[in-house]
Amino acid sequence: MLPRGRPRALGAVTLLLLLLLLVGFFLFGRDPEYGLRAAATLDGDLYGSRNRSAASLQPLLPPKCEVGVPPQLLHVAIVCAGYNSSREVITLVKSLLFYRKNPLHLHLVTDAIARNILETLFRTWMVPAVVIRFYDAEELKPLISWIPNKHYSGLYGLMKLVLPSILPLSLARVIVLDTDVTFSSDIAELWALFAHFSDKQVVGLVENQSDWYLGNLWKNHRPWPALGRGFNTGVILLWLDRLRQTGWEQMWKLIAKQELLTLMATSLADQDVFNAVIKEHPELVHPLPCVWNVQLSDHTLAERCYLEAADLKVIHWNSPKKLRVKNKHAEFFRNLHLTFLGYDGKLLRRELFGCPNQLPPGAEQLQQALAQLDEEEPCFEFRQQQLSVHRVHITFLPHQPPPPRPHDVTLVAQLSMDRLQMLEALCRHWPGPMSLALYLTDAEAQQFLHFVETSPVLSARKDVAYHIVYREGPLYPVNQLRNVALAQALTPYVFLSDIDFLPAYSLYDYLRASIEQLELGSQRKAALVVPAFETLHYRLSFPNSKAELLTLLDAGSLYTFRYHEWPQGHAPTDYARWREAKAPYHVQWAADYEPYVVVPRDCPRYDPRFVGFGWNKVAHIIELDAQEYELLVLPEAFSIHLPHAPSLDISRFRSSPTYRHCLQTLKEEFHQDLSRRYGAAALKYLTALQQSQSRA
Amino acid sequence: MLPRGRPRALGAVTLLLLLLLLVGFFLFGRDPEYGLRAAATLDGDLYGSRNRSAASLQPLLPPKCEVGVPPQLLHVAIVCAGYNSSREVITLVKSLLFYRKNPLHLHLVTDAIARNILETLFRTWMVPAVVIRFYDAEELKPLISWIPNKHYSGLYGLMKLVLPSILPLSLARVIVLDTDVTFSSDIAELWALFAHFSDKQVVGLVENQSDWYLGNLWKNHRPWPALGRGFNTGVILLWLDRLRQTGWEQMWKLIAKQELLTLMATSLADQDVFNAVIKEHPELVHPLPCVWNVQLSDHTLAERCYLEAADLKVIHWNSPKKLRVKNKHAEFFRNLHLTFLGYDGKLLRRELFGCPNQLPPGAEQLQQALAQLDEEEPCFEFRQQQLSVHRVHITFLPHQPPPPRPHDVTLVAQLSMDRLQMLEALCRHWPGPMSLALYLTDAEAQQFLHFVETSPVLSARKDVAYHIVYREGPLYPVNQLRNVALAQALTPYVFLSDIDFLPAYSLYDYLRASIEQLELGSQRKAALVVPAFETLHYRLSFPNSKAELLTLLDAGSLYTFRYHEWPQGHAPTDYARWREAKAPYHVQWAADYEPYVVVPRDCPRYDPRFVGFGWNKVAHIIELDAQEYELLVLPEAFSIHLPHAPSLDISRFRSSPTYRHCLQTLKEEFHQDLSRRYGAAALKYLTALQQSQSRA
Repeated sequence: MLPRGRPRALGAVTLLLLLLLLVGFFLFGRDPEYGLRAAATLDGDLYGSRNRSAASLQPLLPPKCEVGVPPQLLHVAIVCAGYNSSREVITLVKSLLFYRKNPLHLHLVTDAIARNILETLFRTWMVPAVVIRFYDAEELKPLISWIPNKHYSGLYGLMKLVLPSILPLSLARVIVLDTDVTFSSDIAELWALFAHFSDKQVVGLVENQSDWYLGNLWKNHRPWPALGRGFNTGVILLWLDRLRQTGWEQMWKLIAKQELLTLMATSLADQDVFNAVIKEHPELVHPLPCVWNVQLSDHTLAERCYLEAADLKVIHWNSPKKLRVKNKHAEFFRNLHLTFLGYDGKLLRRELFGCPNQLPPGAEQLQQALAQLDEEEPCFEFRQQQLSVHRVHITFLPHQPPPPRPHDVTLVAQLSMDRLQMLEALCRHWPGPMSLALYLTDAEAQQFLHFVETSPVLSARKDVAYHIVYREGPLYPVNQLRNVALAQALTPYVFLSDIDFLPAYSLYDYLRASIEQLELGSQRKAALVVPAFETLHYRLSFPNSKAELLTLLDAGSLYTFRYHEWPQGHAPTDYARWREAKAPYHVQWAADYEPYVVVPRDCPRYDPRFVGFGWNKVAHIIELDAQEYELLVLPEAFSIHLPHAPSLDISRFRSSPTYRHCLQTLKEEFHQDLSRRYGAAALKYLTALQQSQSRA
Repeated sequence: MLPRGRPRALGAVTLLLLLLLLVGFFLFGRDPEYGLRAAATLDGDLYGSRNRSAASLQPLLPPKCEVGVPPQLLHVAIVCAGYNSSREVITLVKSLLFYRKNPLHLHLVTDAIARNILETLFRTWMVPAVVIRFYDAEELKPLISWIPNKHYSGLYGLMKLVLPSILPLSLARVIVLDTDVTFSSDIAELWALFAHFSDKQVVGLVENQSDWYLGNLWKNHRPWPALGRGFNTGVILLWLDRLRQTGWEQMWKLIAKQELLTLMATSLADQDVFNAVIKEHPELVHPLPCVWNVQLSDHTLAERCYLEAADLKVIHWNSPKKLRVKNKHAEFFRNLHLTFLGYDGKLLRRELFGCPNQLPPGAEQLQQALAQLDEEEPCFEFRQQQLSVHRVHITFLPHQPPPPRPHDVTLVAQLSMDRLQMLEALCRHWPGPMSLALYLTDAEAQQFLHFVETSPVLSARKDVAYHIVYREGPLYPVNQLRNVALAQALTPYVFLSDIDFLPAYSLYDYLRASIEQLELGSQRKAALVVPAFETLHYRLSFPNSKAELLTLLDAGSLYTFRYHEWPQGHAPTDYARWREAKAPYHVQWAADYEPYVVVPRDCPRYDPRFVGFGWNKVAHIIELDAQEYELLVLPEAFSIHLPHAPSLDISRFRSSPTYRHCLQTLKEEFHQDLSRRYGAAALKYLTALQQSQSRA
């Protein structure tokens, strides 16, 4: 019995051990760097075309932030250029962040425009556990500009080819994404597919979901060579170090040059080259499940993929028509995309539990400052609002910066959704450059986009820069908005106006002439005052000249601005003198003076402590006076305030004693700061404040 | 060699077979009804307290909608009563729908208020693959009202105990949820845990994440008995047929009665009873992983759970403070919740690919009608807007219906976000009931809620019913909004007004008196005209009487409404006669007449074809006239329009010839319908239209 029993027992033990090994494998068998290596052997079955049965069985994911486990940092590279792609990429990033549970490192290849926009956006977004690095697309152009290309993405599309050369050598793997994709799942699941690569595979791609590369779409259609239907490069897993080892750079250049001998140009940019290389070296490609790049192009065959799969992972809007592409399931896909288009980005500022050192610059101090606030304090809302860091998307729409001209003036103002209908009139009154800050939610920003696109007046103007400041908190951050618009003005002078004012038709020309005549330059520090009027009627035939304005004033159709409620705001402008004036004249600062002025772009910023209604401009004029700006009233300049329903903030100011008390506190703190900065010279402002309060 | 070789080979074969079995198990081993049965054996290790290593390995999910696979319908039961819980449950349902991939059947136990709200909401929401069934909470009260209960949920909390008795016998399993939970994962993953129940287990629960049941929270704290920390009943997996078999009803009643002998009342409603039962029968409970009910109560210990888990599945706001609970990670959890609070519910109308017969009533016809529209047609936007079915949330805020009074009048109006600041003034001018439709996004509805809560004037008024109509499409659906507000008016008469009008302070009393005096009842069909005025100044001292009004009119501070732009709109009211009138007088209909009127609640509805700006009230007055309503002008009634900036719709009307053309088409179609319905009697309207157009 023994001789037979032993091998049996041995067999049983071996079996048990193997079973244990296998179970252990499933439970703990993660490769420390990139997921479960074993899963790679299942590849053909589970992750090729058969998504159906695979959908329920997930591969093990790369380690998330958990206590005691070093999280896997996921690297993503995106090429992004220009205004429209910058808007697009933000929606992509929102969808990434919504589902991700790992820290991310974004490698952004950008032109100067996109870099400017995205740098500001990410700095103000302050998302924990996201690192951003920019690469200058300009420097890459010589590497690919020799390839003639007909695709709408231009040279930028081709840049994905050179990523292995320009990304840091230390970076072994990266996921490359087009700006027009939307995630509907955790990108870690995509990263986990690296573990399914065989030793020779260097690039993971989804099959192209159209017949383009079969060459039968139309007569004489000659696509680049490809393996069957070819592959789509909207989503790429790039195994960078292997690519470098295989001499990728030489390989793709050689093949591209060969093909260009007969094909003249690429039609689909990098995708043509990738496919030509894969056609010659099929061993390099690792096919990915179709759900990772559901392509909604004009002639898409994606239905074969998504009708079978229960779980779509990435949607790719790869038609030039983007969301307007015709597709019988378009509504479904649009809803996924619209989810993130309108998603409030500040909700993505959530931390990843357990991730160490994930806070971006400034966020930690901000958190501490917020934590120190006392929620029971009556002015808590004001304190909190002052500390808010709003996400800022500068130049939200395509913009043509004004040519450099020494006396040019930009109109600077801020608004929210309820003043959009002012924009067309403003454009008719001010033919020069404008820099406008808009205080909107993410969803409202999309409505705004639609509003501009459907307005012939607005869409014709490329010299108006719109900067979105995303809403956060209960009080209107009026001075923070003004500062954003002011910082983005590109001319040497700025006209600091308000959105409900319409300038005289001639004001833009007149201001430039005045600046030149008065020889305002770096030597002479002056603020030119534009006298302000108002109409209480909402249908006004706008005066074409000072003479017409005076007639309306005498007829009682116009008043000097806030004549009834707050005359001291503009009294120092001296309207009586202005009536007769033929030349600019000096005026002196007095308490509560808040004229609309033209100043050099490098003027002092507005004090961001003033949020909500009240005193926001007054403080700025004090600052100008303290810095010894001359105040010069222009004899032919004017601007007229149009009536509107009172804002919610002004209603609150009028009805809430706490609100007024808090504003008073802010004023006092402002004066304390003034004394600190200007010493005895600031005394006059405090005295004026006290006098004005004892009168009230 | 052979004798030793055979057993080896045998061993190897056995091993291979076992391996194949195991692999097959993982790949195809789903129980046809509810997931992978085998996973149940892993329970203790994988799904108990050790979420860390388990998080990456998902159990197999119940079948989704896929070609050829019957999808698992998931059943969810929720008890919901009153206005606030109805708002709450919608956020929960949004989070459910966002992640779900299976058809859902919701079993809603509601009081009359919640049923009214939710029935309207789900009917208009039209989400595919969701079935709703209501159960009357009133009928359940006798079953549990004998249990004294101190919990804030009142009797409704206890109703979960009787679900096995009232849910259909055919229903074997159900997930029971509190209204204050938010999903951040697919509920199918939770359903899959049924497969881990042992044969004896009937209820799946997460351990309570506070020390409540340990009885050491404060001195003399005597909680109900529980196993250790006890279990939380915010999320329950109920195995209904087993519960019925084990005599659940008798069991819990007996144990509850026993405990009540010494404990007097439950503190935590059903949860106390569930725990007492489990204490006596621990074999009945299947403990669920803590991530399925992360409890953010006041003394929560949830941190132990969520700091270890990378994936949180369900957040439970089980403090009476709800989102305002103090917690150092509150911001993170609030963001998850706010995601769905502000999420545009219409995006959840997406179909599940591959699910058969998933469309709710009406949705298929709607889809077909929409599909038949021609996108290139100039009035496409109008056609599309007319077909839009807006989600409607009636009585969004707590509401006290007016007591039945035979001559009572409800003010009916509609507004969007930019008119919110009118509400306080309106409340001061109209002390009676109001029914207001608000056209808002989901996010704006939350801002509106905050606005009302922080306004002492508005929060004091319980007789104002606010109905949210969710935004969809580019044109303002003015008449659909009016119809929603009108349908919800609960008094016998309605005053059909507009939001930018303030009624005379005395109007409410005066109207009721007039209705009584004029003996308006079911016999006499009359529309009482309230003459309309306007001010162009945005600071008006509102007249306290007709005499004061006439003085202001003579002084030019007031005008008759739209005197300058559209006098024909109110000309038939005959303002000259009104000046002198001491008694109500009859007037005749004339073209373009659009007075503000008081009519019986059962008056004709507004014609929903008029969307955007123009002709929406005119058509309604024609309808009244066609149905032979007398038009009676009231001598002491008046209402005054306040100025505001022109709406976006009116701007478009003025600037777009297409817009005006489409409005003209709508008018013509309206007249064709009139002729069809009223025959020759409708001829006068067409003649009037043609005359008015030939004049224009």
